[in-house]
Amino acid sequence: MRPYVIVNVAMSADGKLSTRERRQVKISGAQDFTRVDRLKASSDAIMVGIGTVLADDPSLTVKEEICRERRIQRGEDEHPVRVIVDSRARIPLTAAILTKGTGKRIVAVSARASQKKTDQLKKIATIVVAGEDTVDLTRLLDELGNRGISRLMVEGGGTLIAGLINAGLVDEMYTFVGNMIIGGKDAPTLVDGEGFIQESEFTRLALMEARKIEKGILLHWMVERDGLSR
Amino acid sequence: MRPYVIVNVAMSADGKLSTRERRQVKISGAQDFTRVDRLKASSDAIMVGIGTVLADDPSLTVKEEICRERRIQRGEDEHPVRVIVDSRARIPLTAAILTKGTGKRIVAVSARASQKKTDQLKKIATIVVAGEDTVDLTRLLDELGNRGISRLMVEGGGTLIAGLINAGLVDEMYTFVGNMIIGGKDAPTLVDGEGFIQESEFTRLALMEARKIEKGILLHWMVERDGLSR
Repeated sequence: MRPYVIVNVAMSADGKLSTRERRQVKISGAQDFTRVDRLKASSDAIMVGIGTVLADDPSLTVKEEICRERRIQRGEDEHPVRVIVDSRARIPLTAAILTKGTGKRIVAVSARASQKKTDQLKKIATIVVAGEDTVDLTRLLDELGNRGISRLMVEGGGTLIAGLINAGLVDEMYTFVGNMIIGGKDAPTLVDGEGFIQESEFTRLALMEARKIEKGILLHWMVERDGLSR
Repeated sequence: MRPYVIVNVAMSADGKLSTRERRQVKISGAQDFTRVDRLKASSDAIMVGIGTVLADDPSLTVKEEICRERRIQRGEDEHPVRVIVDSRARIPLTAAILTKGTGKRIVAVSARASQKKTDQLKKIATIVVAGEDTVDLTRLLDELGNRGISRLMVEGGGTLIAGLINAGLVDEMYTFVGNMIIGGKDAPTLVDGEGFIQESEFTRLALMEARKIEKGILLHWMVERDGLSR
């Protein structure tokens, strides 16, 4: 049973996740930060692409103490399992996501990842090999399901989200739309990758809620299923 | 006096204006179409970039008869002045925006546009030369102001909007966010161009209203002024 997948991202009013140099920017404020922290605390695992790890070096730990305590009371680890999608095993051994905070890490690689690097990573993380050249996300999610992960939050970036959307693996999407224009045809967007060509291929959404938070607005979308995609 | 500038665009939930092949797609529905038509009817002129003209061949006429009648009653032309930003004068003489419906047309070119083509265009449109290599949008807007245009609606695409945003020429922005994912790192977005690099450079917005329309949501932003940009 594959996990239920919730994508959560903050984007500018023009749909950018950061600048063209992939510089991390502040799109939302403290109130939205708390919302995201709680969403994270309610997830079994949190997934991120290697591009975001290399650009931002996030730890993806739960920040609020009360949230961490409640997880422990529920018999869970203090932090959700951190899952990094990293086909070639490029993640530095010192990355914050591997070293900060307690808890399990899973590095998902393809068959092309260096054996030497994965051997090193095995000391601090579980290695899942899924896919020949790039990570096969469907197989990875099956594997995560087998490991007891039933609720997966996805932090980004745009390439990973595109892969999940294309494979029909996303159930919900929270997009916080911030009150700024970043611009740039080469800046990373919410969903990058190849993109759809035909209107009939577009992933359709249903808007569940729109809520003003600080200076931006949080849009909560459910992904509509055609019965084939899952 | 430069015109008051209102950008109006429809984008997918991931900030795309169309597919990577620039195929025109249906993002909003009939109700939003009527809103846009009325916004158009309330404007002195409507501006579009040559990329959008070549991709979509829009006429940008006012569709609702009652709106056209009211314009005539107010002593205005049936349709707003159509302004095409077209540095090299690439617009076909048969383009719908030049041939469909009554009213004035302005083709804004740079000094590099072919004399032969601008001579041909002069028979059906007013030519404004502003800028050496590309159209200088500030000079163009000054010129439009001199010609009595005080309220300008901008239809897109992403490159023109980026140019206007960068030059600090935009006052308001309506973005209809549709219930679909288009995806694609090369798909046109709401604001393309080079983009900003530093957070301090970002154009800041104030969210005036968020209104659900059919299956999407209309966000109405005001551009915040720092006192220098205009």
